[in-house]
Amino acid sequence: MGTDELYPPRRLAAAQRATAAAGLDALLLSPGSDLRYLTGYDAHAGERLTLLVLPAEGEPTLIVPTLERPAAEASPAPATGVRVVDHADGTDPYPLVAAALGGPVATVGLADRMWAEQVLALRTAVPGARQRLASEVLRELRIHKSAAEIAALAEAGAAIDAVHARMGEWLRPGRTEVEVAADVAAAIRIGLDGHEEPYVVAGNDRPLAAGMAFSVEPGIYLAGRHGARIEDIVVCTTDGVRRLNTTPTELIAL
Amino acid sequence: MGTDELYPPRRLAAAQRATAAAGLDALLLSPGSDLRYLTGYDAHAGERLTLLVLPAEGEPTLIVPTLERPAAEASPAPATGVRVVDHADGTDPYPLVAAALGGPVATVGLADRMWAEQVLALRTAVPGARQRLASEVLRELRIHKSAAEIAALAEAGAAIDAVHARMGEWLRPGRTEVEVAADVAAAIRIGLDGHEEPYVVAGNDRPLAAGMAFSVEPGIYLAGRHGARIEDIVVCTTDGVRRLNTTPTELIAL
Repeated sequence: MGTDELYPPRRLAAAQRATAAAGLDALLLSPGSDLRYLTGYDAHAGERLTLLVLPAEGEPTLIVPTLERPAAEASPAPATGVRVVDHADGTDPYPLVAAALGGPVATVGLADRMWAEQVLALRTAVPGARQRLASEVLRELRIHKSAAEIAALAEAGAAIDAVHARMGEWLRPGRTEVEVAADVAAAIRIGLDGHEEPYVVAGNDRPLAAGMAFSVEPGIYLAGRHGARIEDIVVCTTDGVRRLNTTPTELIAL
Repeated sequence: MGTDELYPPRRLAAAQRATAAAGLDALLLSPGSDLRYLTGYDAHAGERLTLLVLPAEGEPTLIVPTLERPAAEASPAPATGVRVVDHADGTDPYPLVAAALGGPVATVGLADRMWAEQVLALRTAVPGARQRLASEVLRELRIHKSAAEIAALAEAGAAIDAVHARMGEWLRPGRTEVEVAADVAAAIRIGLDGHEEPYVVAGNDRPLAAGMAFSVEPGIYLAGRHGARIEDIVVCTTDGVRRLNTTPTELIAL
């Protein structure tokens, strides 16, 4: 599967329309799953500023440290239509944010996991702008998976199955957890995001729709003793549910 | 070395005095190195709120998810004098923050890497409080290492030396990076923080003092080809410098 299918330019355009519809002037996205979702750039979160400035209208700008520019250029980001600008060590990167916004703004949406040091710096660099969370805008987009995303999840499910199939071989007396973890890491080879919407929890009255993916993970924990959990990835289709990993859940004695 | 030496209760008291001296009413610390520095609790950063509320005067409160309470209780935190309170899934944890502050506050210091979703939630939960960064207060404390911390760094240096000593054995044709990484992880067994103050960079005119530790890491990078870096941990003493790792830096052909 090509990265252009996983990170299509229309995703940025859809995010811009949703940003405008939510009454925000721009999204400001530091490294994390939102940045990766929109541009395919799996950026390093460090003390140097990396930020996607996505105005509701106009050209998206990806601000990166000069050191990281080659990584940003090599990522799917340029093909999605973002302009890359960089800042050298010892220079203030925040004027680049104001410039990329292209004018005064009233409200911005910040990546949910942006660091406080950047949140406060942006409050100074974009004075008077009300800060909200980008997830208000992106949650609805991310919750509906494309065919390419579901194919990627199915690949992940297959990788998980492959790991389970070999666990009997890997989990043997005398082996350390580190050794088993190395086996699992070598077998998995594709990235997986952590928890995200839609959450199947009490109080969530969101209707299900085709293209929504869930992690279903019932667990039992005996305090101070041990616990066990079964995790399945399932996707909602037009005529039911499709499980993306297929390992049987019976208890197997090794 | 006992954890009570590494995380002494007087460190919280010193942080409270520094908080007051900096004109802040409280520090609000989410999982990260500041929380760990003050309480020894190496908390999991997740979607559930974990927060140390450290008022300039009064009792420190560690707010944790109910699920994490056993981990918090088992950490060095209770011995440093913090009170642990927990919140169950489905309940709003932010009223616990207001309660732990014990009254209205004008200015709070947030962990530098607190997530934006918590920064904005705290703006609502502690209305009218000006938000600054906790590093304004903690940087000066953390920069001066205690004898116990220097001993821990020396242990880390010895672990690095032990890894270097076996690299010739581990780095062999046919082995994967994952296998070598597992060997390194198994050998190191102690945690290391990332970069922190004092930074030895152009423009930093901070005078050196005994107890300051530095990572000295000259590197050379050939664009598009490869790079190499030497990293040493050194500590400033009253009569010079002490290097905490001792592996020779000559080029060795394997």
